Amino acid sequence: MTGLVDGVAVRAACRAETLIGPTPGLAPGCVQANLVLLPRDWAFDFMLFCHRNPQPCPLLDVTDPGDPEPKRVAPGADLRTDLPKYRIWEHGELVAEPTNLLAHWRDDLVGFLIGCSFTFENALLEAGVTVRHIEQGVNVPMYRTNVPCISAGRFRGQMVVSMRPLNPEQTETVTRICAKLPLAHGAPVHVGDPARIGIADIAKPDYGDPVTIHAGEQPVFWACGVTPQAALLATRPPFAITHAPGHMFVTDQRDSDLLMTSPV
Amino acid sequence: MTGLVDGVAVRAACRAETLIGPTPGLAPGCVQANLVLLPRDWAFDFMLFCHRNPQPCPLLDVTDPGDPEPKRVAPGADLRTDLPKYRIWEHGELVAEPTNLLAHWRDDLVGFLIGCSFTFENALLEAGVTVRHIEQGVNVPMYRTNVPCISAGRFRGQMVVSMRPLNPEQTETVTRICAKLPLAHGAPVHVGDPARIGIADIAKPDYGDPVTIHAGEQPVFWACGVTPQAALLATRPPFAITHAPGHMFVTDQRDSDLLMTSPV
Repeated sequence: MTGLVDGVAVRAACRAETLIGPTPGLAPGCVQANLVLLPRDWAFDFMLFCHRNPQPCPLLDVTDPGDPEPKRVAPGADLRTDLPKYRIWEHGELVAEPTNLLAHWRDDLVGFLIGCSFTFENALLEAGVTVRHIEQGVNVPMYRTNVPCISAGRFRGQMVVSMRPLNPEQTETVTRICAKLPLAHGAPVHVGDPARIGIADIAKPDYGDPVTIHAGEQPVFWACGVTPQAALLATRPPFAITHAPGHMFVTDQRDSDLLMTSPV
Repeated sequence: MTGLVDGVAVRAACRAETLIGPTPGLAPGCVQANLVLLPRDWAFDFMLFCHRNPQPCPLLDVTDPGDPEPKRVAPGADLRTDLPKYRIWEHGELVAEPTNLLAHWRDDLVGFLIGCSFTFENALLEAGVTVRHIEQGVNVPMYRTNVPCISAGRFRGQMVVSMRPLNPEQTETVTRICAKLPLAHGAPVHVGDPARIGIADIAKPDYGDPVTIHAGEQPVFWACGVTPQAALLATRPPFAITHAPGHMFVTDQRDSDLLMTSPV
């Protein structure tokens, strides 16, 4: 999709259903976000879960119950139509994958927009760091870990991580860049031996695609925005909606807006 | 009260009711917090209000419904007994000021602990900046403003600010120090003319005591943790509990734990 240069353009294309595919690479420099929609009755527990687990679940915006407009990050947008594809969940089971929510909306739904790794990947690319899955043209590999999230009310689950192989000498630079982006998962949560965080086989990701790890490289792991989806599966609320993987909500914020600037 | 050197000691004295007075100056270097307790039905709206207004309402910890233990900032503590004095509110009216909550606790109450200006005042004192109300031995002057908070569900209200007079040449240093403490209200929200934020008479604070402003000094205003109490008055939920002014919850966190360290 050419011409989708900003959040307004991407969202208009979603609304018109001329865009129903994944969003990586669209609207370069604009913050993309994971979406979770939950009924009001479940929203407090989930917001508490996000507050207690800010690295996998950094909250960019939360809507009022029934209000489909994320006023903070994209005034005028509509969460019912402005993503390319959605997933509808009932009791933790995937029941539909529609391209809009007009037949599924409820006036008690609260929208949670959660930071996404694209933001820090853009910062890494700008710093000259090669990101392997982008180089290989595949999805980032993601893994369930044995690292428990801090539970909150009825919500619980283990952290999901994404992985990018790096040379040891790159790790410090990468950590410094990512630590300045706490709303995009921040610094890596683990470097090295995958077994230490409960990953049995690095060649077999639970989500996304495997990537090559060259000799001398080590796997570097980040908290991942799929964590809330794993928590939905573990917690099984009666009703929930998320974005379809890779089909993100594109905001009006710029990646640089998320930068934690040093006040010094 | 001598010997109250840390959060554990202060909380034990509150629990034993040997401490029923204000907490400024106790447990030096420990983070003190504002408390708001609300029934679960009101907790989501209030958490949303805090998320949207992080400068007046920086969330340090939020408890599960019915759980009196703030596990993040003070494991083992009990919000029902570990503050010196509380205020009970019904429909926005103050109805009681007990020294514990044993007769008032409900198993649907959610506790919100909100950052407090003592943390940045300690940082200013350490940097050699004189804090006028401490010098004069009075409470900090606080003012209602005409600056609206971003409303959230049923919660709305105007920002309350605290004021400390400073020489213009101190303002940059003070801003730099406070900006590193976003969980303790962060940088000042306004410097200079009080009328610009709706304050009619700087000599007549709405809460606390007036302080002297010397020739050449300008008033510097910070977002204030009394803002959520003002929002409770404006919103009038059927039931709420707060700390009594100056009678804070003393956590196990150190002021330095709240420092946003530059990752560079």
